[in-house]
Amino acid sequence: MRLQLAIDLVDKAKALALLEQVVDLIDIVEIGTPLILKEGMTIVTEIKRKYPAIIVLADLKIVDAGELEAHIGFDAGADIVTVLALAHDVTIQGALQQARTCGKAIMVDLISVTEIKQRIGQLESIGVESICVHTAYDMQSHGVRPLEALRLASNVRTKAKLAVAGGVNPQVLRDIKSLQPDTVIVGGYITNHVDSRMAALEIRSLL
Amino acid sequence: MRLQLAIDLVDKAKALALLEQVVDLIDIVEIGTPLILKEGMTIVTEIKRKYPAIIVLADLKIVDAGELEAHIGFDAGADIVTVLALAHDVTIQGALQQARTCGKAIMVDLISVTEIKQRIGQLESIGVESICVHTAYDMQSHGVRPLEALRLASNVRTKAKLAVAGGVNPQVLRDIKSLQPDTVIVGGYITNHVDSRMAALEIRSLL
Repeated sequence: MRLQLAIDLVDKAKALALLEQVVDLIDIVEIGTPLILKEGMTIVTEIKRKYPAIIVLADLKIVDAGELEAHIGFDAGADIVTVLALAHDVTIQGALQQARTCGKAIMVDLISVTEIKQRIGQLESIGVESICVHTAYDMQSHGVRPLEALRLASNVRTKAKLAVAGGVNPQVLRDIKSLQPDTVIVGGYITNHVDSRMAALEIRSLL
Repeated sequence: MRLQLAIDLVDKAKALALLEQVVDLIDIVEIGTPLILKEGMTIVTEIKRKYPAIIVLADLKIVDAGELEAHIGFDAGADIVTVLALAHDVTIQGALQQARTCGKAIMVDLISVTEIKQRIGQLESIGVESICVHTAYDMQSHGVRPLEALRLASNVRTKAKLAVAGGVNPQVLRDIKSLQPDTVIVGGYITNHVDSRMAALEIRSLL
């Protein structure tokens, strides 16, 4: 399983300092939506330039203008951009096409999708190769975790690789592990930890 | 009916030049998602500083972290931020709460919602006062227009004000007019016109 760090901090200096602490322990760095909204694509370009070897995912959460918005992300240096599964197929196909043109990739985020089984089938049929099971941040304080959705997605998908996100910590990770998703996305447990490097090492040891 | 100009250009200089041409003809300037993704909040701040009297809407399309992301928009100078109707209610409520705290507003965007009738009822019940009927840009080339959805929304809503977006041009506007939405959102017809000021004047004359 690959480890993706979701940088959910809004302060650019803090985000860069955090990344520097743990960059050798992660496979993918996700530049979170709030930081992107605040800073725009310069933050993506800056991180990719500083760490060219690491995979950079820009959490654009594209829901329209798929080709254009994916292009903005790839052009700025992102290796992967996210697209909402809630978007129309034509939007997802536009982003996919742009990824193929640029030799890059998209990850389709199931956030807020209720008919997971049906939507995964549709996504695979239009050529989506990477799907993220994602419990919204705003739902985590209501005790929702992505484990059940991941179990369902694992049973349904045929080819697509799965990522899992939303309140992942060591305890949740123990349960996730049996389902062997391709990528585990960890945000707050690392970014809000008093010792982020120790937290990342702990997560790493559990993968 | 108020006129909202959706700046769907990605180039900042072109966007600012366009706005300067028509700013006295519009009620609300919408800073489009692609421009926000590219430039971040500095473009929102810059436009609000330059035109303090105009209402600035930042098309953030919030789908998670409602309170935080709305705060980022308001803090940068936006008077209104958009939230997806597809988001969980708790996310919309977080953004609403932040709007009340800041004395600002949210507009909830129905893009990709299939059960429009049901969702408008739910949105009104959690206190949403402004709803946008929106045909995705990616669906417009498939001939889809927002008229039917606007008609449905007009029949269903009780208190919420309606805006309409997605391929609005003079021809579509003639049909929209009978439904008297609070706000008509026009993008490409003005921004891609050889004479944007003339296009804005034409739209204005039809309102």
